[in-house]
Amino acid sequence: MSTTRLEAFSDGVLAIIITIMVLELKIPHGSALIDLQPLIPIFLTYALSFQIIGIYWNNHHHLLHAAKEINSKIMWANLNLLFWLSLIPFATGWLGENYTQSWPTAMYGILLLLAAGAYQILQKTITKEKSDNETKGKLSLICYMLAVFLAFVNPIFSDLLYASVALMWFIPKHIKIS
Amino acid sequence: MSTTRLEAFSDGVLAIIITIMVLELKIPHGSALIDLQPLIPIFLTYALSFQIIGIYWNNHHHLLHAAKEINSKIMWANLNLLFWLSLIPFATGWLGENYTQSWPTAMYGILLLLAAGAYQILQKTITKEKSDNETKGKLSLICYMLAVFLAFVNPIFSDLLYASVALMWFIPKHIKIS
Amino acid sequence: MSTTRLEAFSDGVLAIIITIMVLELKIPHGSALIDLQPLIPIFLTYALSFQIIGIYWNNHHHLLHAAKEINSKIMWANLNLLFWLSLIPFATGWLGENYTQSWPTAMYGILLLLAAGAYQILQKTITKEKSDNETKGKLSLICYMLAVFLAFVNPIFSDLLYASVALMWFIPKHIKIS
Amino acid sequence: MSTTRLEAFSDGVLAIIITIMVLELKIPHGSALIDLQPLIPIFLTYALSFQIIGIYWNNHHHLLHAAKEINSKIMWANLNLLFWLSLIPFATGWLGENYTQSWPTAMYGILLLLAAGAYQILQKTITKEKSDNETKGKLSLICYMLAVFLAFVNPIFSDLLYASVALMWFIPKHIKIS
Repeated sequence: MSTTRLEAFSDGVLAIIITIMVLELKIPHGSALIDLQPLIPIFLTYALSFQIIGIYWNNHHHLLHAAKEINSKIMWANLNLLFWLSLIPFATGWLGENYTQSWPTAMYGILLLLAAGAYQILQKTITKEKSDNETKGKLSLICYMLAVFLAFVNPIFSDLLYASVALMWFIPKHIKIS
Repeated sequence: MSTTRLEAFSDGVLAIIITIMVLELKIPHGSALIDLQPLIPIFLTYALSFQIIGIYWNNHHHLLHAAKEINSKIMWANLNLLFWLSLIPFATGWLGENYTQSWPTAMYGILLLLAAGAYQILQKTITKEKSDNETKGKLSLICYMLAVFLAFVNPIFSDLLYASVALMWFIPKHIKIS
Repeated sequence: MSTTRLEAFSDGVLAIIITIMVLELKIPHGSALIDLQPLIPIFLTYALSFQIIGIYWNNHHHLLHAAKEINSKIMWANLNLLFWLSLIPFATGWLGENYTQSWPTAMYGILLLLAAGAYQILQKTITKEKSDNETKGKLSLICYMLAVFLAFVNPIFSDLLYASVALMWFIPKHIKIS
Repeated sequence: MSTTRLEAFSDGVLAIIITIMVLELKIPHGSALIDLQPLIPIFLTYALSFQIIGIYWNNHHHLLHAAKEINSKIMWANLNLLFWLSLIPFATGWLGENYTQSWPTAMYGILLLLAAGAYQILQKTITKEKSDNETKGKLSLICYMLAVFLAFVNPIFSDLLYASVALMWFIPKHIKIS
């Protein structure tokens, strides 16, 4: 069994996840610029989650290149990852409307941790080689855990931490971060 | 006519079915942890249906490998399967909001029976060989029928039975279950 | 430019059209069997439109096999077809809630005529050969025109005519219908 | 890394963007022809945005043919383009309900400018060759800027300008426009 169809299905699911999030941006009733103001935090969390799904898509792509054939275990590990990622639109919507509240902020981080854990499982199922992005992956996990904790101190710190992790992935590999 | 485009179209439809179900998880108005509580049954039925669609995707993939070319009959049989599967988001939503009620629970099982029947028809149209998952397939059918019946005794029994069937598909093939 | 990506994009759009129609099946508030009753006409129009999109997908697939390369004209003709088909979920929803009313019934037929016209244009752009389904195509056009007219006499006649056309496409090619 | 999966993912996202816009066409409560009247501007903006996404899909297709391999920069530049395009359903919905108002009209143009800018970046990342559609691209940018300005004079002028740009892309390449 080749990787082609697993990639096609995953691409489909990721494309839908990344796009249906935009449905949370409800069209305002008024037509003034000010009517867009309440949408700003929802827009920013949308942009953040778009970027996170984009990172997953990119890493997923590289990871599946390492797989020579797909067995039953890889398929379930992949479905497990897609499941947690499919909840990101929900967590994004809740965070966007409550970005100053502890639980929505913490829950977003918990979901990112679950997705990251599912990715680790998929990676270990596919290859024993270490990922090129080993350091970034570990750093992300630590930041997410910290953000979940900080959500109960000041959720804004967590929001900034989520954004920092997303930005970190833009830094090219050959620049050492540790 | 090759199987490529039939697979691509089916993958697309299955990817959308599996993802739009998450839209039933409406974002709560409050921001406390307790506000997520009413969503728990909806989340659990979502997870169940996600797993069921995942199983169909996996089996569908293996089945189409057995097909050498696609004729008109296979195409209609495939469309018939996709039709019943496309109703799963609806049945999932109804069950999620009424998991202790007889009819929503029974209807979920009836739909799973119809989808399973459509899968049998597709299988017979494609190949005369028996499936590797023959035993699991038959056991699933019996459990679904039992669950539809039990929905009028105690719907919780049916819900547990649906979950058990989904879990059964995780057991690797080489472990004998009968 | 090969046909691969045009097929992939069209498959994607058709897969989404066929699946988002199911969102019109709103989950009932009650949990009794009777609560599903108002959904019956909506379910039936959904089944009808699902079948119609399925026919288009099938024919589209065969048509693009005849194309050796894709030029700008083919691309626009294809986009034109997808545009009219993308309105089917809207027309289906309006018909489903008003299947005894003249205008929703007529509008459904008018949209089918527009889609059929767009398909004819695409066909002529791709190939000068006659389609295998020439007779069925013409018969469909006549029936749709008749249905639009009948919508102002008795919409139920039109609904039955739409269903008959969809059923006609199941008849294998080698059985002569004229 | 080949272009195949980047194309597949982009096609998926573009197919979803082009299709979910139709969800803004809410089914009217009445069943008379007159009930469709308030939907006319929403329908027209839908048709406009459908055409614009179609143009992007077409150009995107040609652009990626020029790419021999996909590096990290191309991937991010592509994701950046998809991000701005994913906001088109929102801007379309706001414009459709407020096509005589300045800000919704201006915002639509600003978004088109951002998407066009993202496309320029992607193009420069992929190839140093000039695009075949260089003139049309530049003309579009000028028209969008003019439309944003005109939105505060008379939004209808802007709407007509948006439509003119979309129509311009139908003109075959070999007819000189300058």
